[in-house]
Amino acid sequence: MLERRAARPSWLHHDAGDDCAVIEGGEVVTVDTLVEGVHFGARLSAADVGFKAVAASVSDLASSGARPRWMLLALSLPPDPPVLPWVRAFARGLAEACTQFGVYLIGGDVTGVPAGGPRFVCPTLAGIATSPMLRSTARPGDVVWVTGQLGLAGAGWSLDEPPPEALARLRRPQPPLSFALALAASGLATAAMDLSDGLAADLPRLAWASGVQAVIDPARLPLSDALAGCPDPLALQLSGGEDYELLFTSPPGAEPELAQLALEHGVQATPIGALRPGRGAILIHEGGEPLPWPEPAFDHFGRA
Amino acid sequence: MLERRAARPSWLHHDAGDDCAVIEGGEVVTVDTLVEGVHFGARLSAADVGFKAVAASVSDLASSGARPRWMLLALSLPPDPPVLPWVRAFARGLAEACTQFGVYLIGGDVTGVPAGGPRFVCPTLAGIATSPMLRSTARPGDVVWVTGQLGLAGAGWSLDEPPPEALARLRRPQPPLSFALALAASGLATAAMDLSDGLAADLPRLAWASGVQAVIDPARLPLSDALAGCPDPLALQLSGGEDYELLFTSPPGAEPELAQLALEHGVQATPIGALRPGRGAILIHEGGEPLPWPEPAFDHFGRA
Repeated sequence: MLERRAARPSWLHHDAGDDCAVIEGGEVVTVDTLVEGVHFGARLSAADVGFKAVAASVSDLASSGARPRWMLLALSLPPDPPVLPWVRAFARGLAEACTQFGVYLIGGDVTGVPAGGPRFVCPTLAGIATSPMLRSTARPGDVVWVTGQLGLAGAGWSLDEPPPEALARLRRPQPPLSFALALAASGLATAAMDLSDGLAADLPRLAWASGVQAVIDPARLPLSDALAGCPDPLALQLSGGEDYELLFTSPPGAEPELAQLALEHGVQATPIGALRPGRGAILIHEGGEPLPWPEPAFDHFGRA
Repeated sequence: MLERRAARPSWLHHDAGDDCAVIEGGEVVTVDTLVEGVHFGARLSAADVGFKAVAASVSDLASSGARPRWMLLALSLPPDPPVLPWVRAFARGLAEACTQFGVYLIGGDVTGVPAGGPRFVCPTLAGIATSPMLRSTARPGDVVWVTGQLGLAGAGWSLDEPPPEALARLRRPQPPLSFALALAASGLATAAMDLSDGLAADLPRLAWASGVQAVIDPARLPLSDALAGCPDPLALQLSGGEDYELLFTSPPGAEPELAQLALEHGVQATPIGALRPGRGAILIHEGGEPLPWPEPAFDHFGRA
């Protein structure tokens, strides 16, 4: 939607659209916005919002293979309720995530919002990648992987009475940073991106960017025990969103090495399918018929 | 208000609080926020907002001696009125400013705002400074300068029937980028910052950061002919805000060289006073008594 200048400058190595951009020196930068009433509501405390503002962008950096470095934070707040108690709790959660992920706050901008307006939280994060991972470099024949378990945060967002594990994951995303950095350094990944909008939205992006078709077996999607009793866990796994896990691809045969790497970093890594020539993504049980690819629950203007 | 990690990392050369931060490699980064109803309203078209989002941050970079390079843009919009016409006009103004100031848009984030909420525009800009200028390095005896004329944009914002020149300056700020870069390269400036909140707010910041007292003669503040007929032009010059001009200091005796440099870049540069030992800022007519320092019209939560 926004026009760009025609000639890409030599210092810009990758212009990654909605995700991270990679600049000379291996600097990877990303901006994200959390709007009250769209991206967070009553289920998140101020401290949760502070933690999440950092963790969601760390997830972007991690998926690019970038070690987080600095953050600029823009914060816009309405006058009511009183600003200070909210900001104090927000800053506590922010500092907690900064310490956990090695992010240093170097500056920012704090402004007002007219009375009745929502809170806006807009972090810009930068990191350094020695071997950047991209979403556009996967190849036919590659294995498709995800880290962690899918759908927990989505359950925390959407279920009337979510299990505590789901609420905890919604409030405190845990992007697999150390594993992602090790994966980038290993050279074993052919492509990577983070799962923020749900597999149903994100996997087709990787497939289109790489010019391949992803074939996924829904039975192989990692499921938390906490979701085993839910009416439609597959819908949460595919479209719940906010997983902040890693989606990546590897050449066939690298499975043992990758399993070992995941073990070393205490991360669950699950092969969920493979890539073949074609476009987009297909959902198919082993030996079965293709299922319709689910509608993504997220778009740019919030949850559908 | 926001906690920081205790030890400053070695890659962070200057952590400039509300303004730019300087990182290794001379990268200078800044974030700014424009909230509808606080920073812009009916007097700015969508294209004006786009132009201003870039120009205001270019002003920050220029005052640090940094040549603009990239921008990340976060944009949050309510569903009504329809998003697309506004975004198209906004993008036109944005592209115009990007071309004028040499800024390349490398990515961003577009999200929704709940119905009835304000538009939210949050640009992060980065540039490269070979000789960064800071606000904390002025010394007693230095001469205080401003570029351009003060109060025009403030008049465009606050007067009931502002002159066209004032509206034009409010809508299309013109930070003196090429002069600021030449000034940084010349080594003639001892300190610099941009005038965004008005001299009454910004000069004390420079004085406190440098540990000096600024003595300003109000009769020397550059005044546009367009404001000559206003009831209280001095109030606009001091507190109108949004000048996006350069405030800088130089060692005594550098006036002829600086006048020449300003001439070469087509910029008006005016010495308005001097620094002496002490703290803060004082307003005093030549040979007269000190006047009370005016209350700034801006604070972090918008205009008073």
